Amino acid sequence: MSDQRVLRPTPISGFPEWSPEIRSVELAWLDHIRTGFERYGFASIETPSVESLDVLMAKGETSQEVYTLHRLQEDAGEGSDARLGLHFDLTVPFARYVAQHFNELSFPFKRYQMQRVWRGERPQEGRFREFTQCDIDVINVDQVPLHFDAELPRIVHEVLSGLDLPSWTLRVNNRKVLQGFYEGLGIADPITVIRAVDKLHKIGAEGVRDILLEQAGATPEQAAACLELAAVGGADAAEVAAEVKRLGVRSELLEEGLEELGFVLGSLADLPAGSVVADLSIARGLDYYTGTVYEAAFDDDPGYGSICAGGRYEDLAGQFIRRRLPGVGISIGLTRIFAKLVAEGRIAPGRSCPTEVLVAVPSAERRGEALRTGALLRGRGINTEVFHQAAKLGKQIQYASRKGIPYVWFPPFEDGKDHEVKDLGSGEQATADPALWRP
Amino acid sequence: MSDQRVLRPTPISGFPEWSPEIRSVELAWLDHIRTGFERYGFASIETPSVESLDVLMAKGETSQEVYTLHRLQEDAGEGSDARLGLHFDLTVPFARYVAQHFNELSFPFKRYQMQRVWRGERPQEGRFREFTQCDIDVINVDQVPLHFDAELPRIVHEVLSGLDLPSWTLRVNNRKVLQGFYEGLGIADPITVIRAVDKLHKIGAEGVRDILLEQAGATPEQAAACLELAAVGGADAAEVAAEVKRLGVRSELLEEGLEELGFVLGSLADLPAGSVVADLSIARGLDYYTGTVYEAAFDDDPGYGSICAGGRYEDLAGQFIRRRLPGVGISIGLTRIFAKLVAEGRIAPGRSCPTEVLVAVPSAERRGEALRTGALLRGRGINTEVFHQAAKLGKQIQYASRKGIPYVWFPPFEDGKDHEVKDLGSGEQATADPALWRP
Repeated sequence: MSDQRVLRPTPISGFPEWSPEIRSVELAWLDHIRTGFERYGFASIETPSVESLDVLMAKGETSQEVYTLHRLQEDAGEGSDARLGLHFDLTVPFARYVAQHFNELSFPFKRYQMQRVWRGERPQEGRFREFTQCDIDVINVDQVPLHFDAELPRIVHEVLSGLDLPSWTLRVNNRKVLQGFYEGLGIADPITVIRAVDKLHKIGAEGVRDILLEQAGATPEQAAACLELAAVGGADAAEVAAEVKRLGVRSELLEEGLEELGFVLGSLADLPAGSVVADLSIARGLDYYTGTVYEAAFDDDPGYGSICAGGRYEDLAGQFIRRRLPGVGISIGLTRIFAKLVAEGRIAPGRSCPTEVLVAVPSAERRGEALRTGALLRGRGINTEVFHQAAKLGKQIQYASRKGIPYVWFPPFEDGKDHEVKDLGSGEQATADPALWRP
Repeated sequence: MSDQRVLRPTPISGFPEWSPEIRSVELAWLDHIRTGFERYGFASIETPSVESLDVLMAKGETSQEVYTLHRLQEDAGEGSDARLGLHFDLTVPFARYVAQHFNELSFPFKRYQMQRVWRGERPQEGRFREFTQCDIDVINVDQVPLHFDAELPRIVHEVLSGLDLPSWTLRVNNRKVLQGFYEGLGIADPITVIRAVDKLHKIGAEGVRDILLEQAGATPEQAAACLELAAVGGADAAEVAAEVKRLGVRSELLEEGLEELGFVLGSLADLPAGSVVADLSIARGLDYYTGTVYEAAFDDDPGYGSICAGGRYEDLAGQFIRRRLPGVGISIGLTRIFAKLVAEGRIAPGRSCPTEVLVAVPSAERRGEALRTGALLRGRGINTEVFHQAAKLGKQIQYASRKGIPYVWFPPFEDGKDHEVKDLGSGEQATADPALWRP
């Protein structure tokens, strides 16, 4: 070994990394989520990690979070990489993808996309600089049926319910309810109100009230009504509509919003009670949402931030194509969820390797027989290692045990004798036929 | 629609992206490769896309290809992102991972890693700036049995054989054969010879000869012997060894190398003839290989570059930890292979969506029945869409046909009647029970 200086690597804050045992659980989660999305007919796409800055900035948002790419030694003649950045979400790349491939796609286009995204923000609880998002969106030319507003939370519910999470609630609202109510109240700047209400859980009712009075030009009565609306919620659509109407505000947009919200909640009435509820304080700050909005959080730690979120938008890709492409989408914050559970010790580590059977090599002479046995088991779909050298059987059993391999296979010590297999869990050992045996 | 200016997005050179139909094939490939790796007991790990530049540069190589990360608006107080770069392979991150998690891992550690990597090089045929590599490595403390030198090409053979590729050959050599031969010849600088021979297929025998004479200090006789050695090859290990010995050079290292090469080829003798062969011109330019080296290329386009490559190294992570960690690994250049076949039209597009059944909605009144039928089919593991609105059946069948969905399901028009299912391939329609039917 050289005596050169050693550079002890340390984790980089905001870039999570897992041991093989934890990774095996993450992989099972990713498989589960993908299967759930495909079960509803969503197609996989992936986009490059990189977009041109023009594309990333087309909406003029979040610019300071974007990581730009540079060559360590930029060629004099080729500076174009300086115009590239890592995507910070999967919505902007999806919009660009749809515009670019518009003529190749068949609509309504239902896609899922499970990829890493990057944000150059200060790492803190629940915030990472590299993380995996799992997005589903349905887009169509000109209009998207309300059917999908109800289908998306059902998919998310199905997917998250299979992940053994601490209890969580998916909250639904409709921006038309908010905008219609504020307009009906006579508020001049409903967007400012929406942005303020979106902060309710962070800054409290008093904080929201101050913004409404000082920035949205609301009267104290109007501000009070906005806060009353934000307190409305529950699983029963009719009751929610009744409560809103009791506040005495009328507008066509409000009516329309309540109807849509009622359709979504009504379609989900078969789900377990309380798992999907209306919550009229859910606003989602982003400007582009126009109808249904969704947000889920852990019940015992709502301040941790949303574990999935989304909504309906009227125009996905207007920056990139002269076609109106409305849609509805939800994004699951996989890393945010998973990392929290890892940190809290709630993820039971999986196996350190996928091996189901270790075939022992009792002697150099019997290595060929061990290799043939391994090939036979693999051919039958069983994940199999053949021990890497002839060694004492005790050492080979110890290797399997240390790696959590459940079975050790003993090929016959001489031709014509039986194979045997040992179950390391029970300690039982029995003869077995490699052409028939199953773990 | 706004009349704002539209930014027509264009593909960024070197960053491939696929339509849903092509992506579905890529996804099937990724699944196939992963299954192949797991079948031999390799465990999945992933590392962040980002490493500190200290880590990326620890070997002092390929620095100009590294993409460094910068914030678009760097905070005055927090310039640390400027010390981060995207990984350019999976070996350096793996070395760092093993050093960092050394005490958590169980050895020999067999891992696979299928991730994107980035290289800021000029895009050209077969060279991308973002691409997916599929790596397997076995590492151990102090020594790694030769067993794995033979197992890795077997895995790669099994995996690539399942991908319906144009014919390819996996070539094997051993650096000890080269180094031992050059030393036995009395050449002072064998590393320069290895680097020159590595370019044989690019610059030809004359080009190599020139380097040997001018840079490696070889005599014309020595150079001729080196080129004779590079011409040796074939599937029969004994014949290869005999041919080498006929060249009249002797050294202990050469003997050792020929024995190892013989072991590897002998272990793979059951594979189809010609699929794995010795080729003593294979050198692999990288300094860290010390024994077996591998390289595979397409037979009809060897100039395209290697589609997989690897070898044995004596010290994976010496820059990061004071433990000797030798290993052997192979990397499959997934994107390089896949993109070529896509460009040549050799990838038959898959389905545009994973949906197996579209449940038709004959009328608004029967929507509930359609939704229940969809849930029932999904619960049985069948990927099912329910049409997003009540519409003429012809329109719904057309939607399925356009998307390549093979079956359309008709729930009963009234209670008590039968379900029917139409096979769009054959045109046949028959009654079916949603609790029993299989596609």
